[in-house]
Amino acid sequence: MRMYDLIEKKKQGEALTKEEISFMIGGYVNGEIPDYQMSAMLMAICFKGMETQELTNLTLTMAHSGDMVDLSPIHGIKVDKHSTGGVGDKTTLVVAPTVAACGVKVAKMSGRGLGHTGGTVDKLESIPGFVTALDEEAFFEAVNKIGVSVIGQTGNLAPADKKLYALRDTTATVKSVPLIAASIMSKKLAAGSDCILLDVTTGSGAFIKDFEEAVILAQTMVNIGEGAGRRTVALITNMDTPLGSAIGNISEVKEVVELLKGDGPEDLKTVCLHLAANMLYLAEKGTMEECMTQVKNTLESGASYQKFLELVETQRGDSSYIEDTEKFEKAEFHYDVKAPAAGYITHMNTEQCGIASVVLGAGRETKESEIDFTAGIQIHKKTGDYVTKDDIIATLYSSSDVGFPTAADMLARAYEIGNEKPEEEKLILARVTKDGVERF
Amino acid sequence: MRMYDLIEKKKQGEALTKEEISFMIGGYVNGEIPDYQMSAMLMAICFKGMETQELTNLTLTMAHSGDMVDLSPIHGIKVDKHSTGGVGDKTTLVVAPTVAACGVKVAKMSGRGLGHTGGTVDKLESIPGFVTALDEEAFFEAVNKIGVSVIGQTGNLAPADKKLYALRDTTATVKSVPLIAASIMSKKLAAGSDCILLDVTTGSGAFIKDFEEAVILAQTMVNIGEGAGRRTVALITNMDTPLGSAIGNISEVKEVVELLKGDGPEDLKTVCLHLAANMLYLAEKGTMEECMTQVKNTLESGASYQKFLELVETQRGDSSYIEDTEKFEKAEFHYDVKAPAAGYITHMNTEQCGIASVVLGAGRETKESEIDFTAGIQIHKKTGDYVTKDDIIATLYSSSDVGFPTAADMLARAYEIGNEKPEEEKLILARVTKDGVERF
Repeated sequence: MRMYDLIEKKKQGEALTKEEISFMIGGYVNGEIPDYQMSAMLMAICFKGMETQELTNLTLTMAHSGDMVDLSPIHGIKVDKHSTGGVGDKTTLVVAPTVAACGVKVAKMSGRGLGHTGGTVDKLESIPGFVTALDEEAFFEAVNKIGVSVIGQTGNLAPADKKLYALRDTTATVKSVPLIAASIMSKKLAAGSDCILLDVTTGSGAFIKDFEEAVILAQTMVNIGEGAGRRTVALITNMDTPLGSAIGNISEVKEVVELLKGDGPEDLKTVCLHLAANMLYLAEKGTMEECMTQVKNTLESGASYQKFLELVETQRGDSSYIEDTEKFEKAEFHYDVKAPAAGYITHMNTEQCGIASVVLGAGRETKESEIDFTAGIQIHKKTGDYVTKDDIIATLYSSSDVGFPTAADMLARAYEIGNEKPEEEKLILARVTKDGVERF
Repeated sequence: MRMYDLIEKKKQGEALTKEEISFMIGGYVNGEIPDYQMSAMLMAICFKGMETQELTNLTLTMAHSGDMVDLSPIHGIKVDKHSTGGVGDKTTLVVAPTVAACGVKVAKMSGRGLGHTGGTVDKLESIPGFVTALDEEAFFEAVNKIGVSVIGQTGNLAPADKKLYALRDTTATVKSVPLIAASIMSKKLAAGSDCILLDVTTGSGAFIKDFEEAVILAQTMVNIGEGAGRRTVALITNMDTPLGSAIGNISEVKEVVELLKGDGPEDLKTVCLHLAANMLYLAEKGTMEECMTQVKNTLESGASYQKFLELVETQRGDSSYIEDTEKFEKAEFHYDVKAPAAGYITHMNTEQCGIASVVLGAGRETKESEIDFTAGIQIHKKTGDYVTKDDIIATLYSSSDVGFPTAADMLARAYEIGNEKPEEEKLILARVTKDGVERF
């Protein structure tokens, strides 16, 4: 078998066989197939796509290139969740304890933030003492004991994806539905859960801005998951405005605690309820309606909050910060961003809001950047709100004031103000299962 | 400027600017841009193509990456010729002396054979003593003295093409009209002639099997040549059967001498006359009709033969071999291939004939292979001929008999025999100038 022939085959739009994919990924990981052949292949895939079975084979081969986490020491059905990323997206901190409180196991490996989107691991680490680097044994023990654990990625998961992603990142081959889907799903399959709920974000704050593209990505990932024998559902959620009002690690944890205590922003609550209900549904805890009732009751009864406290304590976090969020360190500096004119906020460039938060120190520009947990943005006015000139639309926080001019300018430009109140947008745009797409 | 952005731009189907192309080719040649980015770009070009001006800029930049031969020490208009390759294609040996005998300078650098097609330099070197490695001074002197010289490629012509071609050859990006056109034309532009005649072969023995694809390639190359300020014309010629009857270096030289002496195969003569006439036309020696009359008279008067003798002598070849071709070394072994059935030859897989000749030793499988000048194939029956069973359709020659079983089998399979006489095909299929395509 020659890589040359496989590139030519894909260039002609033909599907690669399982053996060909195995030869290609194996050879690439062990260095026998050079980067310059793989990048030509990746570009050909960008143009010619991949068939469902072919893509499932690719994803499984990528998953099997490293450790396949064996979650069997954890009793019962394990449900995983993955978000394609957003701004102010703190849903995992609400959803994971809620699902666990409903009796379904969540053994979740999460990522760190990079670029304009935050990461769950960083948010959890802003709670003093919280440890995200548990070994496998401690991880399994935690899930068996309290039903949930959220840790950073451990072991050697999908090294083929790591190497391929680095190559895609320098050859303009990141934006390709099959390649994005294989990258995400290879790690999810390796992570070992029985069921996978995908939160595919769309809109100005998401990587996939276009709704129809998000649907295609969601379908592609659901097909891979199901093809690999995992029950998989995707929700397409709206990321056209930041989710909730808080962007930045400590402030997002505070917002989560408010929600768990029965308060907090409605949009965040709605999205969390849908995500959690679908995770229960995947674990066969009843009809969608029954699952929704169950998660609502669990959240509103305070059981989710109690489970979150347990999660923090089990991972050695100081739960007194959760019980009294005023204890959290506060940013040394703040800066109010004012409305430049009166009118309705008609649109927000949410990606720009995320980038502004990185400028303030809340996120990472490169993998090596250090995070300022106190930094962030409190959004006071969002799309649909009416403002008068000089109303404070957002407040910036940081432990240094050097980023304020740039971040304030970015944020002000991120808001569009007009005369007409925009139509309210749905938060849950579609639900994708192996049977098809339900649009809301 | 970042290569990443240029790849993304081309992936979106946009044209690269002159500055971008210069950055890309310069960076690639000096090693700052890695192979894996360039191969992604090449694949994107395979799918998205290039605009005329963009491609002319690419070709000129590739040409200027090395020496630009300055032919100004040679007086008068210099006309070059390039063939995209064929089987039994010995036209340069007839055309170059004919054009020179008509008073137009031919300062030609030729290639060696590789794969199923032969190369002019190899054919000339089968004449004892013939030197194809002249330095620039001797090359110019020869052309100024007798009007013609044919040498191997000298100096550092289009190193960007060399590096790009090696990459294309391993990444399945060879088959792309703009990339083929840029590769050929960059070397032709660097070689310095004022006018360029392109012989774009098509049919079963050519690299481009499809006529319409050949037309597109021809138009693309003519546009590049004219865009770079060189008068350029292309003929699309038929390579669906071997040209003439001889395949293999010594036997092709013998066939050329026959033709120059007033005999030789009609198909070869027709193609040579059209090529030579078009070269005179490019040098503004009259209308196409006048040029055709001139070359016919020159060939038939024996002036082409005399010029060929001068060419051989000037490049230190032993012209007694031309005057008496019986002096040439003969193959030690020969083998007759017989018709497996009676009927009309309806089609020949001419590429297979070429590959069979390589098996016999007449060509190179790799750049390092040595050539057996005596090896080759004499074709006795071609498409359109009627054969009875066991008629000798071809004779194989070689200085070793080990290749006979394989080559004979390949050759026998290359012939298709049927009941109906096939329609006679045209030899000159189209003529492409900057004004458009004339189909015959």
